[in-house]
Amino acid sequence: MKLVCSQSDLNTNLSLVSRAVPSRPTHPVLGNVLLIADEDTQKVSLRGFDLSLGIQTSFPAEVSEGGIITLPAKTLGDIVSKLPEGEITLAQVEETEDEGENTIITLTSTFGSYKLRSMDPEEFPDLPIVEDGESISLPVQALSEGLRSTIFAASTEETKQVLTGVHVTLGNDAIEFAATDGHRLAVVETPNESGSETAQAGDNFEVTIPARTLRELERMLTLRENTDSVMLHVDESQIVFELGNQRITSRKLEGAYPAYRQLIPQQFGNQINVDRRQFQSALERISVLADSKNNVVRCVIDHDNQQLFLSVESQDLGSGRESMSAQITSSNPPEVAFNVKYLMDGLKALSSVEICIHLNAPTQPVIFTPLSGLKMTYLAMPVQLRD
Amino acid sequence: MKLVCSQSDLNTNLSLVSRAVPSRPTHPVLGNVLLIADEDTQKVSLRGFDLSLGIQTSFPAEVSEGGIITLPAKTLGDIVSKLPEGEITLAQVEETEDEGENTIITLTSTFGSYKLRSMDPEEFPDLPIVEDGESISLPVQALSEGLRSTIFAASTEETKQVLTGVHVTLGNDAIEFAATDGHRLAVVETPNESGSETAQAGDNFEVTIPARTLRELERMLTLRENTDSVMLHVDESQIVFELGNQRITSRKLEGAYPAYRQLIPQQFGNQINVDRRQFQSALERISVLADSKNNVVRCVIDHDNQQLFLSVESQDLGSGRESMSAQITSSNPPEVAFNVKYLMDGLKALSSVEICIHLNAPTQPVIFTPLSGLKMTYLAMPVQLRD
Repeated sequence: MKLVCSQSDLNTNLSLVSRAVPSRPTHPVLGNVLLIADEDTQKVSLRGFDLSLGIQTSFPAEVSEGGIITLPAKTLGDIVSKLPEGEITLAQVEETEDEGENTIITLTSTFGSYKLRSMDPEEFPDLPIVEDGESISLPVQALSEGLRSTIFAASTEETKQVLTGVHVTLGNDAIEFAATDGHRLAVVETPNESGSETAQAGDNFEVTIPARTLRELERMLTLRENTDSVMLHVDESQIVFELGNQRITSRKLEGAYPAYRQLIPQQFGNQINVDRRQFQSALERISVLADSKNNVVRCVIDHDNQQLFLSVESQDLGSGRESMSAQITSSNPPEVAFNVKYLMDGLKALSSVEICIHLNAPTQPVIFTPLSGLKMTYLAMPVQLRD
Repeated sequence: MKLVCSQSDLNTNLSLVSRAVPSRPTHPVLGNVLLIADEDTQKVSLRGFDLSLGIQTSFPAEVSEGGIITLPAKTLGDIVSKLPEGEITLAQVEETEDEGENTIITLTSTFGSYKLRSMDPEEFPDLPIVEDGESISLPVQALSEGLRSTIFAASTEETKQVLTGVHVTLGNDAIEFAATDGHRLAVVETPNESGSETAQAGDNFEVTIPARTLRELERMLTLRENTDSVMLHVDESQIVFELGNQRITSRKLEGAYPAYRQLIPQQFGNQINVDRRQFQSALERISVLADSKNNVVRCVIDHDNQQLFLSVESQDLGSGRESMSAQITSSNPPEVAFNVKYLMDGLKALSSVEICIHLNAPTQPVIFTPLSGLKMTYLAMPVQLRD
């Protein structure tokens, strides 16, 4: 195997696939990236795989001799990232007696040369492929927006299974993203401009995708144009995203996703409009006192003065109170309390200048929506106050 | 106590003194800052003290009622740093029955108000003072330069006592800074432009100051003009730095500092001039392969080709080799090896475009000096190669 490529291509693509290389591999070969140099296409493909998440990319190179090798992902990445812009040559050293079973690969730049051991590429597991499943085209912009405002709400506890993912529902005109950890729920609806192409998948095609996979997808989407599209292939157990020369594979999350639409009340007795950033800054300050065991912020809605009051109380540290002007439509809204973290997460994702808060009784879900832009619903369950 | 001050003054000064507040205080009051509001001078002074390092600052405020309080450093700092620019009022709440022994302090801004508990200021230990010692004026620029290029070479192991500090020697014309951890040595000589003022301290006044104290001093020096000066007061056990309204106190490091000048050879058989950044970049790449147990880089000096070759060898990972052009004056220089970390640390501090390397036998100290600018000497002991 012998190839010449640019430092920046190799560096960018190594960074991408390394996200799927485990830091403590269960099998040594998984700490490597698989590199395939194709003489016919004059392309190099790189692959990282932790048996759950797989990332594959390819980029152009001068391949004078094709071949398949593996290289230690971290060591190679560290060296390549420190090399200046310029040409890099990767070549397999002719096997000599004293190297034993190991294949040696040399990396040569203007300044120096490095020898790294390649493990047997036969040991590197194949990426799952989807042959007979559904194939759907998704517009990059809709996908980016949907993911940005929902992934954060998924559960980070592995035991919560289906809740560790984002549920994606494809209609003919819209794509809906939903994530919940049981305490709060984020739902985003984005227009499906490539609507016609989903016909193949039928109406309301649904899938739950691990949040971890989607974080990598989000990262890769930032390298794409908003007008591009991404192909999603799904079968009974696997998902494959195709973005030009890049590919992410992942298992699907099995099990029924909660019927989250039923959780969102249809009618509300109280509505409050408030400046999002002001609300967010006040919560950030007040959370300093709430961040021990008592993570609760109280909201008092003062209709007469058109003010929203926030307060926290900490046994050890002290107490805090913030206020801001608000447009309050009902005359006697209830007092509600929240886990301050859930409020802050939601406000960050809502992304409009002003937001609208809808609520009923202090024991019922409270709904936050942006007043412009994204079609998003954020639901937070209030905390029951004991006193 | 009651005062009004600006958010930015309070925030800046809290950040400074909080560096001396221990994260796990041995006594609860040490997790606090002491705040003294002086009605006569219309100033507020803040103090943090971990019983070894003390930092005190003061800043102007509208003090309508003087007083002394303590406040939890982390909580207060977190709240103040998140407040927008504007006025902050701090006031002691009239004692009420249900507050018990605690004094309550309110912090009020435009948006909100916070109540924090003050611990008894009587419990807060006094900062050490130096009454009968020497007092020396040090120019800010000389001090900054001297510290920047030596502190890194001090030992970080507490058991190494005097080596955990920087040794400062004051002559009439120059200030010399030296730090060593036993494996390498950095010496910087800066002109003492306020020479006349050191007469009081006699010739060649010497002191060893903990590196930790000097790191805080360095931070504070960045807020000063280069033309300012700093007063250093020293007695048998304590050091006090005075920078305008700011003050750092620290214990001195006791014990004789090694006679480091004796370690620097006076004559050399070999001289190599090399581009500093190129050398540094090569070491950074090559260190990727050297960073396991075998932390050694070999330097081969090729007089005929006027090249410097660096190489590393790692049992597990592979090997690397870098080369760069160099001006080599001797015809048969020895091969030497170094701990790659010590070389990288030194090259970073040398700060000139080109550097000069002087060496004799591969078992003798190697000296690195900048070819222009700072008067600095960096000594690294070569590593003995077994094969």
